[in-house]
Amino acid sequence: MSKTLIRAMILPMTGPDDFFPEGEIAIEEDRIVSVGPKGSAPADFGSERVIDLPDDVVMPGLINTHTHAAMTMLRSYADDLPLMPWLEEKVWPFEAKLSGEDIYWGTLLALAEMIQSGTTTMLDMYADMDRVGDAVLEAGTRAVLSRGMIGNAPNGEKAFQESIELVERYHGAGEGRIQVMFGPHAPYTCSGEYMQRVKKEADRLGVGIHIHLAETQDEINIIKQQVGKTPVQWLKELGIFGGHVVAAHCVHLTEEDMDILAQNKVCVAHNPESNMKLNSGTAPVPELRAKGVVVGLGTDGASSNNNLDLFGEMRSAALQQKLKKDSTTLPAYEVLEMATVGGAQTLGLKDVGQLVPGYKADLISINFDQPHFYPRFSIPAHLVYVAHAGDVRTVMVDGKLIMEERKLLTLDVKKICQEVETRAKRIAAEFAD
Amino acid sequence: MSKTLIRAMILPMTGPDDFFPEGEIAIEEDRIVSVGPKGSAPADFGSERVIDLPDDVVMPGLINTHTHAAMTMLRSYADDLPLMPWLEEKVWPFEAKLSGEDIYWGTLLALAEMIQSGTTTMLDMYADMDRVGDAVLEAGTRAVLSRGMIGNAPNGEKAFQESIELVERYHGAGEGRIQVMFGPHAPYTCSGEYMQRVKKEADRLGVGIHIHLAETQDEINIIKQQVGKTPVQWLKELGIFGGHVVAAHCVHLTEEDMDILAQNKVCVAHNPESNMKLNSGTAPVPELRAKGVVVGLGTDGASSNNNLDLFGEMRSAALQQKLKKDSTTLPAYEVLEMATVGGAQTLGLKDVGQLVPGYKADLISINFDQPHFYPRFSIPAHLVYVAHAGDVRTVMVDGKLIMEERKLLTLDVKKICQEVETRAKRIAAEFAD
Repeated sequence: MSKTLIRAMILPMTGPDDFFPEGEIAIEEDRIVSVGPKGSAPADFGSERVIDLPDDVVMPGLINTHTHAAMTMLRSYADDLPLMPWLEEKVWPFEAKLSGEDIYWGTLLALAEMIQSGTTTMLDMYADMDRVGDAVLEAGTRAVLSRGMIGNAPNGEKAFQESIELVERYHGAGEGRIQVMFGPHAPYTCSGEYMQRVKKEADRLGVGIHIHLAETQDEINIIKQQVGKTPVQWLKELGIFGGHVVAAHCVHLTEEDMDILAQNKVCVAHNPESNMKLNSGTAPVPELRAKGVVVGLGTDGASSNNNLDLFGEMRSAALQQKLKKDSTTLPAYEVLEMATVGGAQTLGLKDVGQLVPGYKADLISINFDQPHFYPRFSIPAHLVYVAHAGDVRTVMVDGKLIMEERKLLTLDVKKICQEVETRAKRIAAEFAD
Repeated sequence: MSKTLIRAMILPMTGPDDFFPEGEIAIEEDRIVSVGPKGSAPADFGSERVIDLPDDVVMPGLINTHTHAAMTMLRSYADDLPLMPWLEEKVWPFEAKLSGEDIYWGTLLALAEMIQSGTTTMLDMYADMDRVGDAVLEAGTRAVLSRGMIGNAPNGEKAFQESIELVERYHGAGEGRIQVMFGPHAPYTCSGEYMQRVKKEADRLGVGIHIHLAETQDEINIIKQQVGKTPVQWLKELGIFGGHVVAAHCVHLTEEDMDILAQNKVCVAHNPESNMKLNSGTAPVPELRAKGVVVGLGTDGASSNNNLDLFGEMRSAALQQKLKKDSTTLPAYEVLEMATVGGAQTLGLKDVGQLVPGYKADLISINFDQPHFYPRFSIPAHLVYVAHAGDVRTVMVDGKLIMEERKLLTLDVKKICQEVETRAKRIAAEFAD
């Protein structure tokens, strides 16, 4: 399968007018050779396999810029509660019982769901990240991994060491499919000194930083009380910005905060459904984009969403902004950009997020031969306002097919579902006494 | 197929604690005989067909309490525009060109999509409603039809007469699957005198009224200027309330408005995604429910949504309210109630919306044997926060299967999609000159 030709409708995400209603993509090994109308592949390409998908739209694989994959273990375990009881009485006690094996299986479940909903790359933050890395290698997806570090927790130092080991062992693994970032949890869970140590070590190892930032009004209040600044100002003063930084959420920002993020090229991972479900607020996404800040889309963990479906996230991103501002805000194509090319930029990945020659062949096909995709007036509007996870038919990562006709080719779905069901219920039962 | 037994997980929607993990529903002709755990069917039931769905959740078919089905013809034709140019330059000119045949095919497409996303009943408002009725009879779904009447339009009188004819010809058609209501469009498009004539005629014929109400701040301002009241106060003064009234949207309400709706048993059709996409606002759903107002869920037309998927609508309803108030607002089971039993009450249908003996067998099955439905901690949370349209496997209306394994049994999907594509593109082309 080293030379593949895909024939389909193609949305390369290289510009709002770029679309090939009868298109063709030539792929050799892990990379795209050509993208264009039918007959545009090099004359001497000599494809070994032709994949005909005339009723599908092929586009870049979606990129989830902020998640905690293994939290699928807690999916629908606790919902509709006030934030603090939800965390203190439900989420944290459950998480404290998760073993490395639980995290491995929970991540496999997350990856199965992500692949089936068209996500080919995730930026993950959790514990036991070596087991997360193993799951990613097995699934065949792409990922950027960060060991979450709560500096103020008893295991803050251990997490710091594990972050260094994670870089040494997984940065560049799977022929480069896995990258690593440092994951200091948030300004309110890490001291300034701790974050500066993290930044120094990240710089030494040449990796970026993934952090929760300005997620809730409570966080703003806490940091204001502690240091008299906004969380963004505080990170700037500590010298955390300047390199590659992904800030998740960024719901509560001042004008000055947004300027700081723009000037320091901080990328923002926007999580609309989590922000709505937890009553965090509406992030100033159009304002950030207007200032030149790169924004990607994320699902956050499955316990605050409760799925890992970026199609739903795209629709919610658009609707949430239109509700807040006006109906013209965040048009469909811009939302698609956030989920693809913006996601790649957010994660610092130079050769995914668009379908162009030389880029990695990370792509998905969406089955448009269904009632809800007719009439076909606008492919971007259909993808953002109409499509759902179940419409994804084909998924390819690094030139390898990992889903065909919705069947996962790398994972044993039945086994994964059963393992997670057994493990999650066993943990929950320990609290039922 | 006069005696059918369905074995599945069953969520009858009779109360938050009612769930049969290994359940059984006995159905004779069009009605439910029994619902309960395995073995609960009458000993002498003698089923002629057994449908085994051990990994599916069976629940009442979803009820769409406000839509304009044929507007699928305009799906993704115009989006992300300011409201008035969108209506005046795009939607209205397009609609003016729709023939009865176009509306017939557009409605068939809508019904195909609705069935595939688990909706068994709709309350529709549009023109050429006899053709809509024909489509419903063909599809085998249930519907309440209302001929939209814009009193101030040149065809206001014609629409009034067509409404009367619609009652005479379609009220009770399809063994009662079709009911009819009167559809005066809105307080700002019908004079007080016109609405009073409508009410009088509706009373004479014994049918209810379906109206848009308090959808936008503009509407509030217009009515205030015209009559010095809120739209709700105005309708009350005109004597429109008192019988069966479905008020769509109800986004902008005063405390007094809500009391009026409650006292007059006006039912509200809530359309969260349309309200967000068009920047209409967030309807006070928890407040209305607290006052005892029955609230159902609707999709509105496909041009302002752009799908007819009530699973998405359930999630958006919950998320929109949580964003506005707090994370405990509108818990999952309450959302399910709005989409089922609340929908039935809204439409004045006495024997659908729940799975109980004696009710019509309108039900759907959702395939829970998929990664995103594990672990199975909460069926209601999974249905509201996780499920999407593509998860619906089986649909039955009036005791007849109309979808199995996602295959539509009553409609020729390919033909419908092609007809709509041709017709919609032909109309759009007339504006391209």
